[in-house]
Amino acid sequence: MFVNRRRVHIEWGDCDAAGIVFYPRYFAMFDASTHALFEAAGWKKVDLRREFDMVGFPMVDTRARFLVPSSYGDDVVIETQVAAFRNSSFDVEHRVYKATPDGEVLALEGWETRVWTGRHPDDPEKLKSRPIPKAVIARLTT
Amino acid sequence: MFVNRRRVHIEWGDCDAAGIVFYPRYFAMFDASTHALFEAAGWKKVDLRREFDMVGFPMVDTRARFLVPSSYGDDVVIETQVAAFRNSSFDVEHRVYKATPDGEVLALEGWETRVWTGRHPDDPEKLKSRPIPKAVIARLTT
Amino acid sequence: MFVNRRRVHIEWGDCDAAGIVFYPRYFAMFDASTHALFEAAGWKKVDLRREFDMVGFPMVDTRARFLVPSSYGDDVVIETQVAAFRNSSFDVEHRVYKATPDGEVLALEGWETRVWTGRHPDDPEKLKSRPIPKAVIARLTT
Amino acid sequence: MFVNRRRVHIEWGDCDAAGIVFYPRYFAMFDASTHALFEAAGWKKVDLRREFDMVGFPMVDTRARFLVPSSYGDDVVIETQVAAFRNSSFDVEHRVYKATPDGEVLALEGWETRVWTGRHPDDPEKLKSRPIPKAVIARLTT
Repeated sequence: MFVNRRRVHIEWGDCDAAGIVFYPRYFAMFDASTHALFEAAGWKKVDLRREFDMVGFPMVDTRARFLVPSSYGDDVVIETQVAAFRNSSFDVEHRVYKATPDGEVLALEGWETRVWTGRHPDDPEKLKSRPIPKAVIARLTT
Repeated sequence: MFVNRRRVHIEWGDCDAAGIVFYPRYFAMFDASTHALFEAAGWKKVDLRREFDMVGFPMVDTRARFLVPSSYGDDVVIETQVAAFRNSSFDVEHRVYKATPDGEVLALEGWETRVWTGRHPDDPEKLKSRPIPKAVIARLTT
Repeated sequence: MFVNRRRVHIEWGDCDAAGIVFYPRYFAMFDASTHALFEAAGWKKVDLRREFDMVGFPMVDTRARFLVPSSYGDDVVIETQVAAFRNSSFDVEHRVYKATPDGEVLALEGWETRVWTGRHPDDPEKLKSRPIPKAVIARLTT
Repeated sequence: MFVNRRRVHIEWGDCDAAGIVFYPRYFAMFDASTHALFEAAGWKKVDLRREFDMVGFPMVDTRARFLVPSSYGDDVVIETQVAAFRNSSFDVEHRVYKATPDGEVLALEGWETRVWTGRHPDDPEKLKSRPIPKAVIARLTT
């Protein structure tokens, strides 16, 4: 699978009163990581729209499991890949690694199921799930 | 002036690692308060769009002054009004009050300048500032 | 089970460029809903800390399933309850309902597993999972 | 003055339903930029705390002026410097530049006044403004 890694600096404003990342912030980081995965593969969202007439890939199901907390000033690495493609939906996996005195540890994991969506053929005001383009699948599975 | 008051509960996730509200959250509360002012005056944004063919009131300048910090579990009251209307721009003022053992105190103040915006008459893809409707001015200045 | 319901107004700032709620915002709403559940049961976090010497209930696993999108101006009702208590961890369920022309629909669901946490008996700088107080279980299971 | 520049990628989740950055997000970017300024000067917040026994630099006044909107996928450069030091407070300026087909433009500006804060000498539970260390002033004014 095509994997994208990006470094994220934990900001003061990412943390809650316990001094650790407020977990909804991780979902925002994951959303940015999924967009970054497609960008790294060659497609900004604007390219996906132009090239494939898609509108977006809304989330239908997401989960995260938290193992080691992070705090302001930490640097983490988010590793993102598509775990599975189906006809019009796909699963994304994120693994977040953090350097510690004992070496790099898995700090949290995230999973997403998204639907490839375009305009409804009968009503351009409406959206409809659409088959994921073969070029996208080919690029992200190699 | 027409004044709207709304109570906001400070959430755990509004606060930073110092245990006080992360100040960008106040700007989100202020934005919601300006929308609430128009709703209280009778117009949701969808109504403003339908009735006046406006598109939005983007921010051009905003400021806040912080006097007393608030923490998770506090209830504050945000008092919002239009301070001035010009041809196509207007100023909003927010005052945030907080109950303390010594009585209610002014915790922070915010100011906004926004521009009343509609579609450009020559190019509906573009936006253009527009005169603020007399009905809006009349309603919010009484 | 003790159930708390709270109404949430979807704000302009909750929504993304597709005009629907940016899903990480739902997790922030869920976190506030779990805190609101305990408040409705009689305990603000400060009370939990004083009465039970707990420090918090950090998240270890959370998931959401999105069925119907919501947009700026929508009002939703979040229904929250504890689904299961174990020795030192517990599961929370959130159901978000939205009024539509066809009646009220389930818009999304969320699940959380949290750990009841206090100071480590041997080192007050460290945290340790702790048995959930019987009074808390009794109150939230009736 | 010592100037720090950092590149920020505008994320999907930074934008509102009008497709432009939701302006409270800029304040979060500015807060991160002020922290990055001190980090670039050699001090993470943890270093400031250890070296100078400071606690933080809470915001007392902030303003932003918005000139050109940015959207998902844009890259902006935030240029940050201290504009003035006083005994225990200081002013920070942020300028955000954006590449456009007509060259680089100033997209927005931000200003902050913060107070250098430490523990109260008579009561370590309380905070008190403190003179800004000469070493900090020297480093950030060259």
